[in-house]
Amino acid sequence: MIKVGVLGATGFVGAELIRLLINHPGVEISFLDSRSYKDIEYSKVYPNLRRYIDAKCISVDIDKDIDNVDLIFCALPHGLSQEPVRKAIAKGKKVIDLSADFRIKDSEVYESWYKVEHKAKSDLKTAVYGLSEIYTEKIREANLIANPGCYPTSIILPLYPLLKENVINEDLIIIDSKSGVSGAGRTPSEGNLYALCNENIRAYSLGQHRHTPEIEQELSEAANRQVMVQFTPHLTPMTRGILSTIYIKNSNGLEYEDIKAIYAKYYGDKFFIRILDENEYPQTKAVYGSNFCDIGLTVDKRTNTIVIVSVIDNLVKGAAGQAIQNMNIMFGFDQTQGLNIVPIWP
Amino acid sequence: MIKVGVLGATGFVGAELIRLLINHPGVEISFLDSRSYKDIEYSKVYPNLRRYIDAKCISVDIDKDIDNVDLIFCALPHGLSQEPVRKAIAKGKKVIDLSADFRIKDSEVYESWYKVEHKAKSDLKTAVYGLSEIYTEKIREANLIANPGCYPTSIILPLYPLLKENVINEDLIIIDSKSGVSGAGRTPSEGNLYALCNENIRAYSLGQHRHTPEIEQELSEAANRQVMVQFTPHLTPMTRGILSTIYIKNSNGLEYEDIKAIYAKYYGDKFFIRILDENEYPQTKAVYGSNFCDIGLTVDKRTNTIVIVSVIDNLVKGAAGQAIQNMNIMFGFDQTQGLNIVPIWP
Amino acid sequence: MIKVGVLGATGFVGAELIRLLINHPGVEISFLDSRSYKDIEYSKVYPNLRRYIDAKCISVDIDKDIDNVDLIFCALPHGLSQEPVRKAIAKGKKVIDLSADFRIKDSEVYESWYKVEHKAKSDLKTAVYGLSEIYTEKIREANLIANPGCYPTSIILPLYPLLKENVINEDLIIIDSKSGVSGAGRTPSEGNLYALCNENIRAYSLGQHRHTPEIEQELSEAANRQVMVQFTPHLTPMTRGILSTIYIKNSNGLEYEDIKAIYAKYYGDKFFIRILDENEYPQTKAVYGSNFCDIGLTVDKRTNTIVIVSVIDNLVKGAAGQAIQNMNIMFGFDQTQGLNIVPIWP
Amino acid sequence: MIKVGVLGATGFVGAELIRLLINHPGVEISFLDSRSYKDIEYSKVYPNLRRYIDAKCISVDIDKDIDNVDLIFCALPHGLSQEPVRKAIAKGKKVIDLSADFRIKDSEVYESWYKVEHKAKSDLKTAVYGLSEIYTEKIREANLIANPGCYPTSIILPLYPLLKENVINEDLIIIDSKSGVSGAGRTPSEGNLYALCNENIRAYSLGQHRHTPEIEQELSEAANRQVMVQFTPHLTPMTRGILSTIYIKNSNGLEYEDIKAIYAKYYGDKFFIRILDENEYPQTKAVYGSNFCDIGLTVDKRTNTIVIVSVIDNLVKGAAGQAIQNMNIMFGFDQTQGLNIVPIWP
Repeated sequence: MIKVGVLGATGFVGAELIRLLINHPGVEISFLDSRSYKDIEYSKVYPNLRRYIDAKCISVDIDKDIDNVDLIFCALPHGLSQEPVRKAIAKGKKVIDLSADFRIKDSEVYESWYKVEHKAKSDLKTAVYGLSEIYTEKIREANLIANPGCYPTSIILPLYPLLKENVINEDLIIIDSKSGVSGAGRTPSEGNLYALCNENIRAYSLGQHRHTPEIEQELSEAANRQVMVQFTPHLTPMTRGILSTIYIKNSNGLEYEDIKAIYAKYYGDKFFIRILDENEYPQTKAVYGSNFCDIGLTVDKRTNTIVIVSVIDNLVKGAAGQAIQNMNIMFGFDQTQGLNIVPIWP
Repeated sequence: MIKVGVLGATGFVGAELIRLLINHPGVEISFLDSRSYKDIEYSKVYPNLRRYIDAKCISVDIDKDIDNVDLIFCALPHGLSQEPVRKAIAKGKKVIDLSADFRIKDSEVYESWYKVEHKAKSDLKTAVYGLSEIYTEKIREANLIANPGCYPTSIILPLYPLLKENVINEDLIIIDSKSGVSGAGRTPSEGNLYALCNENIRAYSLGQHRHTPEIEQELSEAANRQVMVQFTPHLTPMTRGILSTIYIKNSNGLEYEDIKAIYAKYYGDKFFIRILDENEYPQTKAVYGSNFCDIGLTVDKRTNTIVIVSVIDNLVKGAAGQAIQNMNIMFGFDQTQGLNIVPIWP
Repeated sequence: MIKVGVLGATGFVGAELIRLLINHPGVEISFLDSRSYKDIEYSKVYPNLRRYIDAKCISVDIDKDIDNVDLIFCALPHGLSQEPVRKAIAKGKKVIDLSADFRIKDSEVYESWYKVEHKAKSDLKTAVYGLSEIYTEKIREANLIANPGCYPTSIILPLYPLLKENVINEDLIIIDSKSGVSGAGRTPSEGNLYALCNENIRAYSLGQHRHTPEIEQELSEAANRQVMVQFTPHLTPMTRGILSTIYIKNSNGLEYEDIKAIYAKYYGDKFFIRILDENEYPQTKAVYGSNFCDIGLTVDKRTNTIVIVSVIDNLVKGAAGQAIQNMNIMFGFDQTQGLNIVPIWP
Repeated sequence: MIKVGVLGATGFVGAELIRLLINHPGVEISFLDSRSYKDIEYSKVYPNLRRYIDAKCISVDIDKDIDNVDLIFCALPHGLSQEPVRKAIAKGKKVIDLSADFRIKDSEVYESWYKVEHKAKSDLKTAVYGLSEIYTEKIREANLIANPGCYPTSIILPLYPLLKENVINEDLIIIDSKSGVSGAGRTPSEGNLYALCNENIRAYSLGQHRHTPEIEQELSEAANRQVMVQFTPHLTPMTRGILSTIYIKNSNGLEYEDIKAIYAKYYGDKFFIRILDENEYPQTKAVYGSNFCDIGLTVDKRTNTIVIVSVIDNLVKGAAGQAIQNMNIMFGFDQTQGLNIVPIWP
């Protein structure tokens, strides 16, 4: 039984961590940190958790209050994670950070896209990018995990094997992603207002979304050369789910079966990756509430193009679920522990 | 380990049974019956279940194919359950029927509201109404469970204790219920078409909904006198959830605490019933995907009225979840086995 | 051609006024007042209005900037309307106030429900409650219109004729209303966050909603005796629409045709009130974007109860549309001018 | 005043035609044809139209019943339009066909994508593709208009000027489109069931959607060379709206201003095309219920790519609205007649 604490427990990602940890047989939740809801019962903020959580939120002082935990999940906003993570690591704790703060290896790239100075550059060097199926061995040994972004997870999982196997020659990959509104977080703003999101779809941050350098870093790593992406996110009127549609020139004349074989090589024994049959296409509902990533694809011979479609639940495989999967790897649990959730349908 | 079969496995209720049974440690699914999808892999119909179910649907012949099962869940439409249930019972099997066919004790009442002849009247006599928290002991001994309707579950649970304790004198109770669209089933029709349900709310079956006699039968049983209800269902633009708002004249000058004490007496040790604090009100999201029933209430002194609000997930506590809870009771499992699902939020 | 100004033009109600006024042939919009969006083009805030509105928002000084307008629509929040309305009336302008500030005749009742002092009590005396179909003659002569609330409009329209005709004897009427989220306004908060409203329905303000005294004032006026209501509002996952379900004991043995005849007497020549045939029930989609109020009803002989269901678009007949209808009455336009909008379907 | 008849009046496109024609001052609706709803009042099928339409549906015999009309809108399904259109044209009537049957000039291409024989090939030759802003002059003279598909309208409008001006050299253009569910029509099926569309997004018909040859025909016509598209449609949980995201290699080093200038040349005087400023992006809500097409774009210098985003209401500019716009052109009305609808927001 390990003890974990959650920093930033009252955001949607924090709450999803709690939902999933409750049913993990090897974990005890030590504290729920929240400045805004200090001294308030957690189940008053998240009434779904009545019966499960009696604790109140506390405002944790990293210097004093983390001695008895084995692992800290940091679900604070971008920019606010560096200081507490640095301190927790210095105290010898293991940390899984769900912000973007430790994902970009090159601090200059981080600073140019995120417009803030990085205050924990030495930890940046040791942080492991927590894409569970790809970096399993490194994750097992790591003290600090930079948990991947939601869009990047949906994009890197289908592309990594193809780039690693060197069957794609394109230098620019077109990626068109559609996300549910929970990805916009719990802080009320025009961007996540019901009346403006419902019956509406919109593109945003064209060519400027901060997940771009994260995606390019990992795809370039896989390809062992510089890969760029044209990444366009869209806000879709649903609470959960990301669907990414990826377009690649089929320069090497691959067939559906060739790609399926590559996926089998990389993901054949991975519980959470489900490769669909030819002419089946993923839909976000099929992974709702779960840690699965479903991948489908078409090789369009008419246009000589490969079209890949992937789906995840942005709050699970795209955030809290993958974080727990990484915890499982780090602490020797089975990867599916606490995550063997059958997707809800309809 | 018990073996169960599901008749009518490809409707939404059948699929919800499967979703929940997959994680039940004491159950093995023996067959998935479906005429429409005979010989088709179940996970092609419900792609959320890839990885979990490999079986194909079969068209079960009750006379020949049920010998090796301990329990049959019958999720066939109203009117089609009587024959297979009768035969299965005759073969000594235990049956949980999720249709309305065995809920109404008085076959004449059944026939007048459902407009079909009842073909298994002797089984009707032995059937136990499966409201798990109320009829636990009878359920334990039963061979045939008539699993309650979705609206009735949300209504009888909050009202039963008050009527049993004789603190309500009204002969007519006003009940205004709001349901998600999954309650309309999976067969496509104008009533469950996306474009006609989305951005729309409508009342239907005013004074004529078939759940009326079921609600009145159970409330009258509790009160030991004839109780009538004015029941109005509404179709609400969401997939899951029922919220029922109940209005009762406060003839006996009850206070909030009086009612809370009655609920504590009946439900204090019931895991799935959560009574809210004063000035807290239920919302369907707090029970999403789970077997909980949340109940909140106001005693309005200005108007001398008690207003009770209850919520359930119509497919879980309102159908498949309560069926499994009944199975747990019948076979000596812990009631929460397979049902300890933390509601999903947001 | 009359000139109108809109105070609080960037809220949802203000924006709906603009949408409707644009196509009114007798009106010229003189100013769009907004403190938050001062000097910003209105069509940057409401991009649907590109091509129609070039003006920028201004922050209006009532003492100086309203001389050239004939009418002011005040769409400011409750509590903030009294001062500007008082001043505009003092300057001899006609005003239609869309807040609650001038709806409650008795300032003590206002103050006890709204928890603020009323600062324009003398104007309260002369204000006319702007329920267009009922108070047409008074509206024609008024300088200050208190435009009705959204819930009250959906409730008073079906009940007024029955109470006026003295065919209802109940002292307490049960009213269960369901509203879309746009009624919660445009200021972001937990209450109107997409992820918390979508796939969710909840009751709120049980026995305490501020529209209660407004409803009771008008029903009592109609009945010429004190009438109380048990009013329960619900937040429904849709952008627009209110559906109210009303329960009344049928003490006088009315038939459907009796009630239909009463409605014909009051509303037979009213364009915006549509009475449905027996066994037809209103749905919010049928009035979407329009100024209609649809009313359907059942006389349930089994329970001796009348159930009435009414629907409106909360932003049109429940706010901006009725305000323009009142303007039409005040300035001698045809009542349908600018409001002859066919509801959008689906 | 012209007289028009509508074949297939009870589908969503037919109903949208009626909604819009009601307010057209120069049109009288002569008949509403529907086989399924023969002899039923139209406003029973479309209750939004109570007060506006008293007529019953009739089943029109083209040979006998169309003599007194000036124009026929044919809103029948693909494959069923050819026969009635051929006959109506032969009788000297003007026809606007909203199916795909007369859009593809090459009948072999039509037959290979639509899998049916074409039975009116001579009319195919004279049919004019009704993209109102592009083919205005031809439309004015035409007897038979092939009204464009919804996806193609959203795609050809932004691309036509760039291809015509020869500033794009790509032979393959990537187009990722997202549609609301009303595009799937009114006939109930799994594809348009509420519970399966809500909280879900899915890609479909990858590389095989029947709008592909229509898009390619028109883009090739504009470019005066063969242009191919990789077109991927997605089903999005909303009732109305299409958003298309288009990716083009910027081979000629265009700047935002260059493209804006081209759009100004083609669309500067077109009421229904709204070109957004740099860094503004279209959303479907901004055109809801209206005939507008909003176009925004980014020139991404980092990746040397042009990303164009366009939005329409699929039932208006994508179907019925453009059909009426074409009628206006054919009969000498102002193009905005009956279509000057301010988009509804929120």
